[in-house]
Amino acid sequence: MSEARDGGRGGGEFALIARHFTRPARPGSPLVLGIGDDCALVQLAPGQQLAVSSDLLVEGRHFLSTVAPERLGHKALAVNLSDLAACGAEPLAFTLSIALPRVDDDWLAGFARGLFALADAAGIALAGGDTTAGPLAIDITAMGQVPPGAALLRSGARPGDELWVSGTLGDARLALEVFRGTVALAGEQFETVRRAMELPQPRYTLGLALRGVASAAIDLSDGLVGDLGHVLRRSRVGAVVDADALPRSAVLAAQPLALQRLCTLAGGDDYELLFTAPPARHDAVQAAARDAGVPVTRIGTVEAGEALRLVDGRGAPVEGRWAGFDHFAG
Amino acid sequence: MSEARDGGRGGGEFALIARHFTRPARPGSPLVLGIGDDCALVQLAPGQQLAVSSDLLVEGRHFLSTVAPERLGHKALAVNLSDLAACGAEPLAFTLSIALPRVDDDWLAGFARGLFALADAAGIALAGGDTTAGPLAIDITAMGQVPPGAALLRSGARPGDELWVSGTLGDARLALEVFRGTVALAGEQFETVRRAMELPQPRYTLGLALRGVASAAIDLSDGLVGDLGHVLRRSRVGAVVDADALPRSAVLAAQPLALQRLCTLAGGDDYELLFTAPPARHDAVQAAARDAGVPVTRIGTVEAGEALRLVDGRGAPVEGRWAGFDHFAG
Repeated sequence: MSEARDGGRGGGEFALIARHFTRPARPGSPLVLGIGDDCALVQLAPGQQLAVSSDLLVEGRHFLSTVAPERLGHKALAVNLSDLAACGAEPLAFTLSIALPRVDDDWLAGFARGLFALADAAGIALAGGDTTAGPLAIDITAMGQVPPGAALLRSGARPGDELWVSGTLGDARLALEVFRGTVALAGEQFETVRRAMELPQPRYTLGLALRGVASAAIDLSDGLVGDLGHVLRRSRVGAVVDADALPRSAVLAAQPLALQRLCTLAGGDDYELLFTAPPARHDAVQAAARDAGVPVTRIGTVEAGEALRLVDGRGAPVEGRWAGFDHFAG
Repeated sequence: MSEARDGGRGGGEFALIARHFTRPARPGSPLVLGIGDDCALVQLAPGQQLAVSSDLLVEGRHFLSTVAPERLGHKALAVNLSDLAACGAEPLAFTLSIALPRVDDDWLAGFARGLFALADAAGIALAGGDTTAGPLAIDITAMGQVPPGAALLRSGARPGDELWVSGTLGDARLALEVFRGTVALAGEQFETVRRAMELPQPRYTLGLALRGVASAAIDLSDGLVGDLGHVLRRSRVGAVVDADALPRSAVLAAQPLALQRLCTLAGGDDYELLFTAPPARHDAVQAAARDAGVPVTRIGTVEAGEALRLVDGRGAPVEGRWAGFDHFAG
């Protein structure tokens, strides 16, 4: 988003793009120097470490070409804020790189509107980036801060810990199945699950509240089974999960059980937090969730060993292979 | 580059990609936590500010499909290190997002080799990123650190300051003209200028040495006239530049004068530093250049007003419009 990049590389039209993303500094912003120089400068609070994560979204793979630009702006930032949330990092600043097939002023205005609405809510500042012509792709690098030793990691789960998840699971996958034509939903129901897919709510407030409470955390981007697998491998533990306890919306709960299982266990694009905490912190977890205004549900227990056991509400094994989310790869 | 992103989003093949970019932590690295969790954690030195910059490179626009992957890995990082250099920031860590049309193990190995050779030389650590299928594009966000108030900005040039540039200008543009078929060069000469285009040497050591010496700086990515224009506008000053004094290679110096002018004044992809310093710091500039092992050349003077005056060695005006670099836009 430097002037040189926009003005020179892409010609005059791309200088116009920068205007959609240039705003006056906000009071209290950690941005010492924003868009317009070779680098942005960001002030961390004394003693804090930098937490950083990048997500690259490509049209047709991570989002459909039909998505409203305002929602895409929201989602592109949301998936990165979700990574900060999973680490318990406080959002600070982000860079935005966009490749655009053509300059469409209305599209850019909508994209910027969705992006900044979420950025302002999360208190994260746009620090810079790059704009160029090319097949539509959006890469955001989000930066946050966290005191040394306070970050929530995937590696901290211990046998006996309780396993929790925020919000509800599976609506985004249900919406994808509607787009794929494998499921039909009434208009209002479709809008509900489509919102879940296109407007995920990153849980950064909950992530902060879980510092010192949760023993491990990850954000659910690729489906519960796949993402839980990362926690188990890095923590060298196993787990038992009650598939019937997985929280789901009324729309999903009205679908056939096999579809509910697919969507909650292998859905993808949930952007909820999956986390573990010792049983002694059970009440602290619920207090953190209350403070953050985010519902949480106990879904299982961490065990010794390496296995992930899926059971139903009566304790019987749930059969099936639940791979990670494959987006639009088919 | 998180496990979830690679393993889940793109399927098993993309998990293999991550192996090319996963290396053991180096002693003294500022990376507290590297690839494999939701975020990486980076430790800045006490009291320093974070400098951050992103560059997105798209195939066919910022690089040719024929470029050797090792050189592309070098260049993708080099252009970002060049931004840190222009701010006088010390390189710390970077994220790497790649969209790849297909998984090609040899290509990835070469790309990683070029990338890490430069990263190791510059002392910058790969902190994370993302990998996905899609049209070839590479986005890097580079992070550095700088003491408060020490960053070199575009806005600090003052009338009377001397205007300097590092290295030589125009070889990258000359190589591009060969690729475009407008210029013919003998094989060895072509290899020399092609190296300039594909293996730019970012001047991060010089940038650090110019802290407290230079009054303003920018890296030359879009051509001297365009990039100098950014400095002049942000500093609210003018300048006179001696077009005959612009440093150029023996290969370029053997070309017709009009082509020399085009390549040095509006070349693009030089990744040299353009900077200003008070005349009283003339010797300090030369000492910094000596310490950094990078030649620098005095090319003009900052003036009051808003105009950029191009003159030749006899002081006569140089005619012509010198726009910014248009890459492969044609």
